[in-house]
Amino acid sequence: MEKRKKEVLVIEDILGSNKKIASSIRQKLEEKGILAVNLLSSPGSGKTTLLEKIGLKLKDRYKVGVIEGDIETERDAERIRKVGLPAWQITTHGACHLEARMLARLFDQIPADLDFLFIENVGNLVCPASFDLGERLRFVLLSVPEGDDKPRKYPEAFITSHVFIITKADLLPHLPFDANRVTQEALEINPKLEIFRTSAWNGEGLDNLCAFLEKKLQELRAKNA
Amino acid sequence: MEKRKKEVLVIEDILGSNKKIASSIRQKLEEKGILAVNLLSSPGSGKTTLLEKIGLKLKDRYKVGVIEGDIETERDAERIRKVGLPAWQITTHGACHLEARMLARLFDQIPADLDFLFIENVGNLVCPASFDLGERLRFVLLSVPEGDDKPRKYPEAFITSHVFIITKADLLPHLPFDANRVTQEALEINPKLEIFRTSAWNGEGLDNLCAFLEKKLQELRAKNA
Repeated sequence: MEKRKKEVLVIEDILGSNKKIASSIRQKLEEKGILAVNLLSSPGSGKTTLLEKIGLKLKDRYKVGVIEGDIETERDAERIRKVGLPAWQITTHGACHLEARMLARLFDQIPADLDFLFIENVGNLVCPASFDLGERLRFVLLSVPEGDDKPRKYPEAFITSHVFIITKADLLPHLPFDANRVTQEALEINPKLEIFRTSAWNGEGLDNLCAFLEKKLQELRAKNA
Repeated sequence: MEKRKKEVLVIEDILGSNKKIASSIRQKLEEKGILAVNLLSSPGSGKTTLLEKIGLKLKDRYKVGVIEGDIETERDAERIRKVGLPAWQITTHGACHLEARMLARLFDQIPADLDFLFIENVGNLVCPASFDLGERLRFVLLSVPEGDDKPRKYPEAFITSHVFIITKADLLPHLPFDANRVTQEALEINPKLEIFRTSAWNGEGLDNLCAFLEKKLQELRAKNA
């Protein structure tokens, strides 16, 4: 029991100092008018692919950058650079989530005139939900092949997010996934969630999502004005 | 820096006591001739569906039981009970992985004459890999929609597993997933991996997997004889 108590204290300590660093990051980003978005999901839900697609749509009118969080490899950052966006890699070497201190370290590399800063978290629907990175918006992604029973099974990611994106919607005709069920369940957990249905293959929902992001950027800039 | 050192010490402590409890569980299970299998994967890779299917194939000739690890809900245990198998639920209420002490607590409920004990871990391709549960075999599952770039990005689960199962193989014609690439990459990380390709929808690979499990049970019983 003593060990567990020590464990809880250490975790509270880590979360506490993470929160402080995150608040300072958020303040700096928002002063510069940069809209930061933290993307959470299981491995393979389509975070990188979504960023490739909306990055391409936004990059002619906005300055977009991406922080890529991975346990190992720089594969995702390379994909983002291929579509012409700057990407900064954080390799955690085993750690199951990003923490604010990891972002703080590369803060000097982030251009001050960025409009959107996307942070792709480590593929993990559980642990990243506990760590504020200083983002203004948090997106949770769930792909159609993962199944429509996930929000209640992994509630924290849905509770702490502002936006819920159903990805790989082109697979809906082929798989037993009830989009109404999952939407309803997600809203029961968090009634404030904005919900989008997207497909990187046929483009469904991507323009709506970009329009939403632009609106949120305008709101941030209006607050600063 | 002091905080991080404390964190590392606490984690080492947790892993150390987990290892002791796991060793004791393994010894007790193997003395009884029970083959325990720990299943790891992302959420929605098809762990429960695979267990439903192979459970149905094995249950006429063997006594099969399932421990279901979930953060919240008893949904998976209910699915397993529906196919006529006993299931014991461990709800972690937030924790991202099962630990040996959680299994030790329900050990009295596990029938001593079981042949196979499957342990479905929390849906998370990262953290469960660090926790020995006293299993004799560890399976890592990766579904075709998750993408063929995952072994190197999430190496620990592949390094610590005995068996790698590609699930949802019926989706191979529809998705850009190179089964040869993923097999080769997994074997580079862990050359001892046994690899199976399965589909719960069309039954591909399930008989092979059951035959493998039967062989492993015979090996365990021969060791005990």
